[in-house]
Amino acid sequence: MNRHAAIAPPLPDLFRSAARDLLGPKGWIEDGEILKAAAQPWRGGYSGVTPAVARPASTGEAVALVKLCIEHGVAICPQGGNTGLVDAGTPHGEISVSMTRMQTVRDVDAFNNSMTIEAGATLVQAQETAAGAERFFPLSLGSEGTATLGGLISTNAGGVAVLRYGMMRDLLLGLEVVLPSGEVWSGLSGLRKNNTGYDLKHLFAGAEGTLGLITAATFKLFPKVQTASAWLVCNSAEDVIALLAKVRDHAGDTVTSFEMIPANGVEMVRADMPDIRDPLPHAAPWRVLCEVSLSREEMARDVLETALGEAFEAGLVQDAVIAENLGQAGDFWRIRESIPLSKRAFGTSVNHDVSVPVSRIPAFLEATAVAVAEVYPAAEIVAFGHVGDGNLHYSACAPETGETSILRERADQVTAAVHATTRAFGGSISAEHGVGRLKRDELQEIRSPAATATMKAIKRALDPHNLFNPGRVISVD
Amino acid sequence: MNRHAAIAPPLPDLFRSAARDLLGPKGWIEDGEILKAAAQPWRGGYSGVTPAVARPASTGEAVALVKLCIEHGVAICPQGGNTGLVDAGTPHGEISVSMTRMQTVRDVDAFNNSMTIEAGATLVQAQETAAGAERFFPLSLGSEGTATLGGLISTNAGGVAVLRYGMMRDLLLGLEVVLPSGEVWSGLSGLRKNNTGYDLKHLFAGAEGTLGLITAATFKLFPKVQTASAWLVCNSAEDVIALLAKVRDHAGDTVTSFEMIPANGVEMVRADMPDIRDPLPHAAPWRVLCEVSLSREEMARDVLETALGEAFEAGLVQDAVIAENLGQAGDFWRIRESIPLSKRAFGTSVNHDVSVPVSRIPAFLEATAVAVAEVYPAAEIVAFGHVGDGNLHYSACAPETGETSILRERADQVTAAVHATTRAFGGSISAEHGVGRLKRDELQEIRSPAATATMKAIKRALDPHNLFNPGRVISVD
Repeated sequence: MNRHAAIAPPLPDLFRSAARDLLGPKGWIEDGEILKAAAQPWRGGYSGVTPAVARPASTGEAVALVKLCIEHGVAICPQGGNTGLVDAGTPHGEISVSMTRMQTVRDVDAFNNSMTIEAGATLVQAQETAAGAERFFPLSLGSEGTATLGGLISTNAGGVAVLRYGMMRDLLLGLEVVLPSGEVWSGLSGLRKNNTGYDLKHLFAGAEGTLGLITAATFKLFPKVQTASAWLVCNSAEDVIALLAKVRDHAGDTVTSFEMIPANGVEMVRADMPDIRDPLPHAAPWRVLCEVSLSREEMARDVLETALGEAFEAGLVQDAVIAENLGQAGDFWRIRESIPLSKRAFGTSVNHDVSVPVSRIPAFLEATAVAVAEVYPAAEIVAFGHVGDGNLHYSACAPETGETSILRERADQVTAAVHATTRAFGGSISAEHGVGRLKRDELQEIRSPAATATMKAIKRALDPHNLFNPGRVISVD
Repeated sequence: MNRHAAIAPPLPDLFRSAARDLLGPKGWIEDGEILKAAAQPWRGGYSGVTPAVARPASTGEAVALVKLCIEHGVAICPQGGNTGLVDAGTPHGEISVSMTRMQTVRDVDAFNNSMTIEAGATLVQAQETAAGAERFFPLSLGSEGTATLGGLISTNAGGVAVLRYGMMRDLLLGLEVVLPSGEVWSGLSGLRKNNTGYDLKHLFAGAEGTLGLITAATFKLFPKVQTASAWLVCNSAEDVIALLAKVRDHAGDTVTSFEMIPANGVEMVRADMPDIRDPLPHAAPWRVLCEVSLSREEMARDVLETALGEAFEAGLVQDAVIAENLGQAGDFWRIRESIPLSKRAFGTSVNHDVSVPVSRIPAFLEATAVAVAEVYPAAEIVAFGHVGDGNLHYSACAPETGETSILRERADQVTAAVHATTRAFGGSISAEHGVGRLKRDELQEIRSPAATATMKAIKRALDPHNLFNPGRVISVD
């Protein structure tokens, strides 16, 4: 486990000089400040260490670098925007391979509804590339300005449009990957149908860099849609779930987002960002940000209004406002997207990324609140997320700074309580953030042994020297 | 390659008696007629041989059978509805493991939009199960009354709704698989988001039984939609492609089907099935069956009519009829679905399942017709399919029975010509039918060596004794 040591093991001199010659001063960095930044994820909570940061500028340089690593037995930790949350992209003794110099848009085929972009481009760059071709790339999440495509593929990112468009893996048509053998798999393709063997792109998507280094990808593009957005007030989680069903009855799967937001989360945002106003101040405990998207705005609005009208009659909604324009819809989303950071400003919290069957969310929330209170009675619960997918970001917060140390002491018990109820409700303790090192061992306890054995067999077969992001996802040491 | 011998190798007596004791008379069959049927695919063109047919009635029996096979080194060929087209489910010396006794619907959760069904149920059973819960299961293809879910997953089936809903793998939430180790992977789950390691379900989907025996699956369900269907007449392939773009401009991705049908294909159907009438007799060479689906029928009709109105003005459509009711829409589909069998009634044909980028279809059709004519000038070309996905079923037919022997002699040259142009246009020679034994070696020539090496490494790691459908997809002998 040397590669996980607190001090980066020195690199072989021959490897260092060869890497420097290969990548040049822009591509091979040993500057202490940059190494420190590369080993520090944005949210903190843990940190790592790395002897060097490599920044290949092309697939050719990435291949040559990987071959050097194989030759000298040097382990690599691929890193994108460093916005991950499970300690997958933070180096722990490995060299940090940053893809941020590879951002070229290689191809856009609006007619075929596909685009090919290199792994170091940000999600916003991909969204803008699609928009420039009069098309829509649906993946969207809070860190989209920083998170890179390679990282989003490697973690199979989710976000706010999964209900309609699926996770990142569902948006992939092809991949280009540098394999642990040092060979390149040139799997870029704009084809929708291509049954020509095992589907390797789905193996690399979500593998968190443990099976190869993704250098570029071909993505699906979608027709542009017009969206109607509503901000709603609900009296209970039961009403929120019943509302989702009601909206779906009318809108089918043109419901593109359905975000469940607690009133105390909105309060935390307003305390943190005074310029933000609450669209509908109300005593009820829940808010919903719901969007319907169709090819024509008037249809989207019509469908949403009809559904909400019935929801009002059924008593599922206490108050509602439909955005008059994109600006107002943007205000709704700003509140939703600000919750994670405003929660941090509010104080210490123990955070979880879980999913349960949609139908069981109300009972899950009730049972988990009880379980958390047993280990930390003072906890203020903030549960928000993509309820249409059964995905909740569940936080237990310290109500005041004086409580911080107590919550920190009991953090593991709180997490144990949340994960226990999640499992009791047939859920997953890693909905969209991934495994990394943070959840590796717990998942190995939970997962069916046959699944773990299969994953280890694949890892050993494709990366026999365990040089690619070792210790993440599964341990083969 | 003994297991591919023309005569089934005898099974070890100990294995036979143990299998008979395990599965009973309904589950262990050595009757000659049944063995012959199991080794004969419905379309013919090739046939195999098997020493026995095993029909496990439960996952437990399947596990015990696999353990017996491992113990005695007996290879298995999983078989579903035996409707495959690439020689994947036809036994060649292996025992044939039929899943048709496992058809239980284990769970339907309309609220969670998921259902769990055993692998031996047919696609129609799955569609009806969904409909019974007021939901929609979108996979649809010609053999849906016979093809089983396990086979459709193992071949990652496509069909007529891929444009909007994706391939079979895109409809999966979870799997239950008996692994080559004899262990069961219990990966059934109704969760939309579950990033807890490598995504194994996508590895087994499309693996054609080479990595495990699928016994059950959890599928996504969708809200019911109302569909507007149109039968259209177009002057050229260019017009068909431009029409697709025009319809998408208006309908976005509510375009659920867009099937390209040649006039001579309609003629073959009418010659074969006199009760079928041509909805719009016309001299133009192309027909299109286009569907738009929305939560309300009037919206779907409105969107389709508006799009077609503009297409008429742009001269892209020569004549059109929108179905007045489901019966009329069914008549349109009956023509489309009858083409493969009516083509057989017409005479000998050499068939291909290819895909190219949508934008290149017209040029591809032109170039391929020239290439085929060079090796078989008399060929009558019938090219039809899911043009929205770039997927064409491309057949070269003998114009009269006298030509049959000539075409048969040149079949390999015709296929070589079609596949060469497919590759020249950046396409795939196996769009939705899969690899099996039929395309295994050709794909190994075409595929990037890194991809083939990775697939072989996975196969060897998961099935070290090569007992699961050996020789399909890739050869590790």
